Amino acid sequence: MKLLNIGIIGVGRIGSLHAKSVTYNIPSVKVLGITDVNAANSQAVASELGIEKIYDDYRQMLADPEIDAVMICSSTDTHADIAVEAAAAGKHIFCEKPVDLTPEKVYAVIEAVQKAGVKLQVGFNRRFDHNFARIEQMTRNGEIGDVHIIKITSRDPAPPPAEYSAVSGGMFLDMTIHDFDMARFLAGSEVTEVYANATCLVDPAIGEAGDVDTAVISLTFANGAVGVIDNSRKAVYGYDQRVEVFGSKGTLYAQNDTPNNVTLMNECSVSSEKPLYFFLERYMQSFRDEVLQFIDAIQNGKNTPTSVDDGLKSLLVALAAKESVAAKRPVPVKY
Amino acid sequence: MKLLNIGIIGVGRIGSLHAKSVTYNIPSVKVLGITDVNAANSQAVASELGIEKIYDDYRQMLADPEIDAVMICSSTDTHADIAVEAAAAGKHIFCEKPVDLTPEKVYAVIEAVQKAGVKLQVGFNRRFDHNFARIEQMTRNGEIGDVHIIKITSRDPAPPPAEYSAVSGGMFLDMTIHDFDMARFLAGSEVTEVYANATCLVDPAIGEAGDVDTAVISLTFANGAVGVIDNSRKAVYGYDQRVEVFGSKGTLYAQNDTPNNVTLMNECSVSSEKPLYFFLERYMQSFRDEVLQFIDAIQNGKNTPTSVDDGLKSLLVALAAKESVAAKRPVPVKY
Amino acid sequence: MKLLNIGIIGVGRIGSLHAKSVTYNIPSVKVLGITDVNAANSQAVASELGIEKIYDDYRQMLADPEIDAVMICSSTDTHADIAVEAAAAGKHIFCEKPVDLTPEKVYAVIEAVQKAGVKLQVGFNRRFDHNFARIEQMTRNGEIGDVHIIKITSRDPAPPPAEYSAVSGGMFLDMTIHDFDMARFLAGSEVTEVYANATCLVDPAIGEAGDVDTAVISLTFANGAVGVIDNSRKAVYGYDQRVEVFGSKGTLYAQNDTPNNVTLMNECSVSSEKPLYFFLERYMQSFRDEVLQFIDAIQNGKNTPTSVDDGLKSLLVALAAKESVAAKRPVPVKY
Amino acid sequence: MKLLNIGIIGVGRIGSLHAKSVTYNIPSVKVLGITDVNAANSQAVASELGIEKIYDDYRQMLADPEIDAVMICSSTDTHADIAVEAAAAGKHIFCEKPVDLTPEKVYAVIEAVQKAGVKLQVGFNRRFDHNFARIEQMTRNGEIGDVHIIKITSRDPAPPPAEYSAVSGGMFLDMTIHDFDMARFLAGSEVTEVYANATCLVDPAIGEAGDVDTAVISLTFANGAVGVIDNSRKAVYGYDQRVEVFGSKGTLYAQNDTPNNVTLMNECSVSSEKPLYFFLERYMQSFRDEVLQFIDAIQNGKNTPTSVDDGLKSLLVALAAKESVAAKRPVPVKY
Repeated sequence: MKLLNIGIIGVGRIGSLHAKSVTYNIPSVKVLGITDVNAANSQAVASELGIEKIYDDYRQMLADPEIDAVMICSSTDTHADIAVEAAAAGKHIFCEKPVDLTPEKVYAVIEAVQKAGVKLQVGFNRRFDHNFARIEQMTRNGEIGDVHIIKITSRDPAPPPAEYSAVSGGMFLDMTIHDFDMARFLAGSEVTEVYANATCLVDPAIGEAGDVDTAVISLTFANGAVGVIDNSRKAVYGYDQRVEVFGSKGTLYAQNDTPNNVTLMNECSVSSEKPLYFFLERYMQSFRDEVLQFIDAIQNGKNTPTSVDDGLKSLLVALAAKESVAAKRPVPVKY
Repeated sequence: MKLLNIGIIGVGRIGSLHAKSVTYNIPSVKVLGITDVNAANSQAVASELGIEKIYDDYRQMLADPEIDAVMICSSTDTHADIAVEAAAAGKHIFCEKPVDLTPEKVYAVIEAVQKAGVKLQVGFNRRFDHNFARIEQMTRNGEIGDVHIIKITSRDPAPPPAEYSAVSGGMFLDMTIHDFDMARFLAGSEVTEVYANATCLVDPAIGEAGDVDTAVISLTFANGAVGVIDNSRKAVYGYDQRVEVFGSKGTLYAQNDTPNNVTLMNECSVSSEKPLYFFLERYMQSFRDEVLQFIDAIQNGKNTPTSVDDGLKSLLVALAAKESVAAKRPVPVKY
Repeated sequence: MKLLNIGIIGVGRIGSLHAKSVTYNIPSVKVLGITDVNAANSQAVASELGIEKIYDDYRQMLADPEIDAVMICSSTDTHADIAVEAAAAGKHIFCEKPVDLTPEKVYAVIEAVQKAGVKLQVGFNRRFDHNFARIEQMTRNGEIGDVHIIKITSRDPAPPPAEYSAVSGGMFLDMTIHDFDMARFLAGSEVTEVYANATCLVDPAIGEAGDVDTAVISLTFANGAVGVIDNSRKAVYGYDQRVEVFGSKGTLYAQNDTPNNVTLMNECSVSSEKPLYFFLERYMQSFRDEVLQFIDAIQNGKNTPTSVDDGLKSLLVALAAKESVAAKRPVPVKY
Repeated sequence: MKLLNIGIIGVGRIGSLHAKSVTYNIPSVKVLGITDVNAANSQAVASELGIEKIYDDYRQMLADPEIDAVMICSSTDTHADIAVEAAAAGKHIFCEKPVDLTPEKVYAVIEAVQKAGVKLQVGFNRRFDHNFARIEQMTRNGEIGDVHIIKITSRDPAPPPAEYSAVSGGMFLDMTIHDFDMARFLAGSEVTEVYANATCLVDPAIGEAGDVDTAVISLTFANGAVGVIDNSRKAVYGYDQRVEVFGSKGTLYAQNDTPNNVTLMNECSVSSEKPLYFFLERYMQSFRDEVLQFIDAIQNGKNTPTSVDDGLKSLLVALAAKESVAAKRPVPVKY
C-alpha cells in the first residue's frame, strides 16, 4: 500500500511526540515534513528522526502537493485558522484539542471541512486508551445495562505555571475538557447541565490569576444519567486517571496504569509502584492508536472516531462549567 | 468490673442485631431486658438469647432501677420522645440514627440530655468500620496533608419498597444521612453547602412516591475542601461502600470488603467474590465496636464518639440536600 | 435445644482462645469447666469468662457426668493418653494437633475412639478458613477440572525459641503439619512421596538444635498431581498464608487477609496494610467454625470433618519429610 | 551516530518479531539484510519492512562487510555452528536461546567468541521484562536482605505438538530453560542441585513421546537459598508468568500483566481480564529492550547483559533436571 505522507505543524511537546510515534510505530505512514515557529525545533526533530522536509511556515506545507494530511500541533489560538486553510488546501486534518476556545471559530472549521470534503479528527486521545476504550465498548455492548452514574477522577501530578491559565482558558478548557469528552464518550449521551464546585487549594497564585485548581463537577446527561468529575492540579503521587460507569446491571471501573506489577512486603507495609507519572507515559499507546484510526479513516473512507463536533460539544460543556463557577449554580449547556 | 445492664427498646432488625452482638461479643455488658411494640418479637429474642426481662413498654424499662443504659432501636418517629424520657429517667442513651426527621425534636433531645447529665451516642456505626476509621485516623495524623476532596460511594443492593420513602423521609434521610455523617467525619469539618443532582432511574414507583433513587451530591466544607457522594438504591453486585480522601500530600481510599480473598482464573476471566451483601454482613464489626465505645464512655466518663450534635448536623445537611433537589440549585446548610 | 457442656483441658494460648471463642460465639455450647497443670491459669480464665467449674486435673473432668465433650489443648506429649482415657470415659473429643509425634500412639487413639463410639475431631482449623474452605469447595465442584498442581506458602512472622524444636519435633511436625493437612485437603488425595529441600537461614541456633527454618517441600499425590510447600520461620511482614490449586480448567488462589482494605498513595509509593500478624488474628474465624462443626457432628450424629485419621496421615507425611532431609532424597510415605 | 547494520538469520516467529521490533522501535539500528532457509519467508518480511538485502544463505551475510552484527534466530540445532562462523567473520552475535542442547557445542562457541573478541548475547529476554528486572534490581539493592526462597510460576497457554519434544529436547530445554535462567538471575547465585518432580497430566501424547508437561522443580543455590519452579504446558487462562523472591527483610513478587486494568462487578462476580495471551504479547517490551542493551554493549564497549556463559549454565541446570526425572532423585549440577 502507498505510504501516506503527513506534515506536522508545530513540533513542541505534543508535536514531537506524534512525530516520533508515527515514525517508529506506524509503518504505513511517513512524516514527510515538519514546521515550527521556532526553526531550531524543526531542525532538531528532523535531524533526530530523519525527516526530509523542513518548511519555513505551515502555508508552505499546505502548498506541497506531496502532503496528504496535516497534524496541527501548534498553539491553541492558531488551531482553527490553520484548520480552515488546510481544509481549503484539500488536506486531511488531525487537530490537537481544543480546536479553539470560542465556539464561533469551531463553527468556521466545521463549515470549511464540510465544504472541502476532507477528514478531520480532534486529538481526544484518551478515547483510545486501552482501559477507557474497553469500558466504553463493554458499556455499549450492554454488559452493565442502562447507564446511571459516570465517575471520572482526573488529577495532574503538578500544576502548570499560574500564568498559563490566561492563555489556556483555565483548568476547565485546558485540562477538564478531556474529561468532558470522556464523560460524553462513556455516557453515550450529551451533557445537558453542569454544576462546578471549584476552588483554589493547590496554589494561591492560580487563584490570583482567576483560575481554579480543585473541582468537583456534577453533570446531567440527556439520557437521564448523572455524573461527576473530580479534578486536582496536583496529585503528589502522579497522574491519577480513573473512571467508573455504573449501570442497572453492574459497574465497570478502571484502575491506574503502573510501570510494573511488582509488590514489596516488608516490615513497614505492602507497597507497589505509583501510577505512571504523566500523560506522555500514561497515554503513549493511545497517541499511536488515535493516529492509526485517523489513517484508517483516510485510507478507507471511514468517519474519524472523534470529529470536530466532539471538539465543539466538549468546549460548550467547559464554557458552561466556567459560567457555573461564576454564577454559583447549575448551568444548562447551550447547543 | 461490675456488668453494665442494658435495655433494648425495639428488637426488629437493628435492635435484635444489637441484642445478639452485645450478648455474644461484649462480656462486660448484660442485656438485662428488652421491649417491643410487637410482644412476639420480644418473646422470640428473649428466648433465643436467654434475656431475663421482657417489659410491656419502654416506660417500664425506664422505671427499672437496674437498667443503666438504653438502646433506642424503635421506629424513627419515636426516637426523640423516648430519648427525652430516658434522659429524664437518668439512663444513658444509645440512639439509632436518625435521631428525628425534624431539627426541633433533636434540639429537645440535646436539651434533655444536657440537663440530665447522661451520655448519648448516635448509631453512626460506619465511623467504627475498620476501613473508614483507619482512613480518618491516618488523615487526622497528617498522612495526606490538607484535605482537598472527599469522595463517598454508597450504593444499596436493592431498593426498599416505594412506600417506605414516605415514613423514612426519603433517600437522603434514611440512606444518605450515613454518608453525610461520614463526609463530616472524614473531612474533619462541617458541610456548608450542598447541591444534590438526584433522579429516579431504578424504580419509577419511587419517583411516583416523590423520592429519588440515584444521586450525585456535591458538598462544600467549612475548611475549604469539596466533596461528592454518589448513591444508588440498587447495585446488583451488592453493597458498595467505598470512600476516598484526597489531600495535598496523597490520597487514601478503601475498597469494599468481601467474604474471602479467593481469585479464580479460567478461560473466561479472572474473577473474585462480590462485596459483602448488605449492612448486616458488612458492618457487623462496627456494630460491636460502636457499643464498646459507648460502654467505655459510660464507665470511664469519656465523651461518646458520636454525639446528638452529630445527629443534628447530618440531619441539617440531609434537609439541605432535599431542598436543593426541589430548588435545583446549591443550598447553604443552616446551622 | 439443650446446651452442650464442654470441658477444656489445658488453657494456655490455644486453650484459652477456644474458651473465649466458645463462650462468646457459640450460644449452643457452655464451657462448663476447665483444668490446667498451672492452677493460676485455670483461675484466671474461669474468672474472666465466668466458668463454673475448675478441676484439679483432667481425670476429675472425665469423671464428671455433666461433661459431654472435652477439648484437649494440653501439651502435645499428653494428647494421645488423655484422648484414650476420654474415649473410655465416653466423652466426645476435640484434640489439638498433632495428636502425637509417633504413629503408634495415634493408632491407640484410633482404636480407643472406635471402641467407645465417640466422636473425635483434630484441630486442623485451617480447613475452616473462609479462603481455603472456599477453594476446596470450588475445586470439589469441578470449577478447575482435574487438579494438577498444589502450592502452599506458609511462613511464620517470627521463629520460636531454638529450644522449642526439641519438644515440638521440629518445624515439619509443629508448623508444616498444618500445610501437609492442607495439601491433602486441597488435593483431595493422599501424599505418596515427599522431598524436602530444607535449610537453616533464619537463625543458626535453630540449626544447632538440629532443626531447619526454611524449606521447599515437593509433594507427589496418589491422584497424579504434584505440589509444593514453601516455609519460613520468619517473614518480617507478618503471617504469610497463601495457597493455589491449579487444574486442567483454571486456577484458584487465595491472597492474605489484612486488617483493612485501605490504600495510601503518596510521593513514595502505593501502600497498604501488612497481612494479619499471626494465627490468633488470622484464623479466629476458623477456630470458631471448626468447633461449630464439632458440635454439629455430636448433636446430629455426623462424622467430624477432620478425623484422627487425618491427624495420622499428616503425621506420616511430616515424618517422611524429616527422613527426606536426612537422606537427601525423595521418600515414599509409609501408610 | 552511525547506524549499526544488523543481519537476521532466520525470520520465522522469533526472527520476524525481532525484525519488526528493531525496524520500528530502535532508530539507531538498521536491519540491513535477512536470510531464511525458506526463501518465501525472507521475501515476505523484507517486503513488509522495506529491508534492502536478502541473502541466499547465512554465509553470504557473514561475508558482507556492511553487516556489523547478526541475530541468530534459526532452528536450535544450527545456533552453535552459525555462531562459531559468525565469530570467525568478526560479527557481533545475538543468539536466541538455547545456544545448543549439548554443552560441548556451547564450549566451542565460548572459545570462538573469546578468540574473535566479538560480543555475544543470548536471548534470555525475560531478564529485561519490566517486572522481573525491577525485582532483580530491588533485590540487588538489598531491599529484602538476604535471599532465602525463589519462586517461579511459568505456565504456557497451550502445549506444542507432541512431536516438538523430540527436536526441542523436551520441556526443560525448550521452556523451563527460561525459568532456570530467571532463577539464577533473581537469586544472584548458581544452581547447585535440582530435583524435578515431573509428570504428564496435560496430554498423554507428550508422555508417549518421552516428555513431561507438568512439573514442580526444587532448586538449591550456591548462596544457600532454595527455590522452586512450577510449570505446566497448559494454563487455560493464558500465559502465567509470576515470580517471588523472599528474603530476610521482606518479599518481592510480580503479578501477571493484563491487556487493561478494567474491573466488572455484576450479579455474578467481580471480574477482570486474563493475563496477556502468550510470549509475543507478554514480552514485547523485553524483546526490544534486550536488543537495546546488545547495541549499547557493541557501541560502548560494555559486556552484554546475558552472555554465552549464561546460556551454558542454564543448559547444565536443564540437563540435571532431566537426569533427576530419570533417576528419581536430586541431581547436582555439573559445572
